[in-house]
Amino acid sequence: MQGLVPVTREKMNHEDWIKKEFRKLSQSLGFRYVPYEEIEHRLNRVKNGMIKQGIEALLVVQKMDFYYLSGTTQDGLLFLPVEGKPLLMIKRELERAKVESPLEGVVSIKSIRDLLSLIQNHWGRLPQNLGLEFDLLPVRDYFKFQELFPSIHFIDSSIVFREARKIKSPFEIDWMRKAGEIGKKVYEEATKILKEGMTEIEFGGLLEASAKRYGNEGLLRVRSLNYEAYTWHVLSGPTGGIVSQSDSPMGGLGLSPAFPVGASLRVMKAHEPILVDFGTCYHGYQADETRMFSIGKLKKKFIDAYKACQEIHDAVLDGVRIGADCEAIFLKTLRLAKKLGYKDSYLGPPGLQTRFIGHGIGLELNELPFIAQGQSYPLEEGMTFAVEPKIVFPGEGSVGVENTVVVTRDGYEILTPVDQDIFQV
Amino acid sequence: MQGLVPVTREKMNHEDWIKKEFRKLSQSLGFRYVPYEEIEHRLNRVKNGMIKQGIEALLVVQKMDFYYLSGTTQDGLLFLPVEGKPLLMIKRELERAKVESPLEGVVSIKSIRDLLSLIQNHWGRLPQNLGLEFDLLPVRDYFKFQELFPSIHFIDSSIVFREARKIKSPFEIDWMRKAGEIGKKVYEEATKILKEGMTEIEFGGLLEASAKRYGNEGLLRVRSLNYEAYTWHVLSGPTGGIVSQSDSPMGGLGLSPAFPVGASLRVMKAHEPILVDFGTCYHGYQADETRMFSIGKLKKKFIDAYKACQEIHDAVLDGVRIGADCEAIFLKTLRLAKKLGYKDSYLGPPGLQTRFIGHGIGLELNELPFIAQGQSYPLEEGMTFAVEPKIVFPGEGSVGVENTVVVTRDGYEILTPVDQDIFQV
Repeated sequence: MQGLVPVTREKMNHEDWIKKEFRKLSQSLGFRYVPYEEIEHRLNRVKNGMIKQGIEALLVVQKMDFYYLSGTTQDGLLFLPVEGKPLLMIKRELERAKVESPLEGVVSIKSIRDLLSLIQNHWGRLPQNLGLEFDLLPVRDYFKFQELFPSIHFIDSSIVFREARKIKSPFEIDWMRKAGEIGKKVYEEATKILKEGMTEIEFGGLLEASAKRYGNEGLLRVRSLNYEAYTWHVLSGPTGGIVSQSDSPMGGLGLSPAFPVGASLRVMKAHEPILVDFGTCYHGYQADETRMFSIGKLKKKFIDAYKACQEIHDAVLDGVRIGADCEAIFLKTLRLAKKLGYKDSYLGPPGLQTRFIGHGIGLELNELPFIAQGQSYPLEEGMTFAVEPKIVFPGEGSVGVENTVVVTRDGYEILTPVDQDIFQV
Repeated sequence: MQGLVPVTREKMNHEDWIKKEFRKLSQSLGFRYVPYEEIEHRLNRVKNGMIKQGIEALLVVQKMDFYYLSGTTQDGLLFLPVEGKPLLMIKRELERAKVESPLEGVVSIKSIRDLLSLIQNHWGRLPQNLGLEFDLLPVRDYFKFQELFPSIHFIDSSIVFREARKIKSPFEIDWMRKAGEIGKKVYEEATKILKEGMTEIEFGGLLEASAKRYGNEGLLRVRSLNYEAYTWHVLSGPTGGIVSQSDSPMGGLGLSPAFPVGASLRVMKAHEPILVDFGTCYHGYQADETRMFSIGKLKKKFIDAYKACQEIHDAVLDGVRIGADCEAIFLKTLRLAKKLGYKDSYLGPPGLQTRFIGHGIGLELNELPFIAQGQSYPLEEGMTFAVEPKIVFPGEGSVGVENTVVVTRDGYEILTPVDQDIFQV
């Protein structure tokens, strides 16, 4: 009889609600879940890397590595042995993680002290060594793991994730394409938003609002202790000529010494370059792009420089094929910039020029490959990166163009298919 | 004669431009710089903590600790001995850091390998021990420091910063007040923005756009490896009843499994609770607040629950005085919530209820003090925290109120002076 009595609203508890309603509601609002086959493919990539590094099992702590392998970002830890099944341990919130992740073996973990018994129960024993993401794991947590597992040898697993995640599956590329589609809608609306008398940050805020309406996730993730990426990079005239803490040709003024990058409270003026570097994010997957705007016609100096950026951009893409060397592509752009007369303004002012023209992108903004000095390795099918030639004139402004591309069997595909002409209002 | 020849635009280099123009431009656009007296006060607080912990010198790596002691967030490291002067080493961008920081002794550092010689040149020797922020410093960096300084013993300096930063100076409180003023303007505009038929994320995006126009810095910083705080927390009806990965009574649906917190693409409906938890940030200093909205009149159940939240909120503030015990304040709210009939919905659904009613706030969202279970220590003058009673009904929605307050000599001051009635449109 009990099953026939409808659960009244008053009595609905969270667990029941998640079990009954969550999938339906979330999917009706655009949520897609990573299917098991995709996760299995990723698990295999990571396991191959573990074998190469001699790692018997991983404990996955970092949010994006965790999402990559589980399909959820609920708070927890993932135990992954080369031999055997993964164990997803969730601190909060368990029922939601069970819906979001296609993994079997999703259990509750209340405290880090339960790790030992959870792993032993699941796997029958403890591994002799355990991979941890040394590139981000805090020292304090490392010591805690050492204390919990005195017999285990810990190995840096960062490279395993870097290598596995550098090649995107068709599934991942599709989600990056969707991020690119959000960006396309935003740039198409941008000329209706931009008005004389607006500040950079006002324009940036409205671009964000536009993107959010299309489901943009608003935070760009970077694999770094201190580096923060945000999307309101609107630089106009002299603020475009300012180098700041970021490893970027120019950072802009920002809003204060505490946020010294991106849009400022400066009122944008006619005839000066307005550079918009706007990244978008769909289900964690990012697309990064830059376009130029102006109120009235841009001065010839900047139009010429922008044409040079486009020429360099196109030259990079001409060179994109499986097997092409990343450093060689970068060095080619240096020669071209010099030939075009921008030796001292390409990628920043003298003494502050950056040494990259492209950065890998996916769940994070600084993935492999880097199209950069010292990065001599070949492009592979399924690599995704942003190409961003920029030219900087201190005191005056900067110009640039940026697209996110994927290396295909035949060359490349642009994932940010927005018109590349200067948007003039 | 040279000084009389004006620097032409063509020849302006970045260093000259920063030296000549940066301070003027940035100040005209609202930048304020931390004066030396304030930094000196902070240095002394930190040095007192170092002495207590037996730390001879600190290497400050983490961005907000670095900003707290230097006034800049340009990329770099700060060496701070108990005896002697601090050394600010800047990787990028040096000239800007020299404007932003009132510290003397600002030098360039190209590579971490230069640390040894820079410290020796500045201080004459190396310290016997060195404090590092173990709570966030990545293991890989820690090993690098061990390799660079084999003779030095490393000590966790996190507690030194936690303790120093838990009491805000009048200068810091003033900047938090300014963050609160941005929030006030946003909430005052919000009823003009909210419309039937809007999605949560559209409303959230427009609130953000409004805040940015007033100089809001848009990112809320949290001291954590994986925890991300963003401001577009707009939860309506059933999404307000969803618990997610955050240590919060409810997290909302979010936009995908990769961003499972905050506003979603759900269209907000009439008569249901719309909870807006919106933090603002001025020069790095944050204010956090929550208010309720509705389209048309809210159902009585939610109005009653909201009144209960207000009663709990006021009871907390009644108990705020120098010397009051943080845990005791929290436990008092549990008793009051029970008495008011919300034992099973206060701070989350059964089994998922959080155990705090307030969190310290300043440069980060999770500072001392915590008004929480297990946090038995006294309130002190100059502590700032957010008080946020919330009541959650799975499947239906949540209500709550939140203000940021500072403990004063006589009691408290609310830094988020926004009307607390339900905003009905």
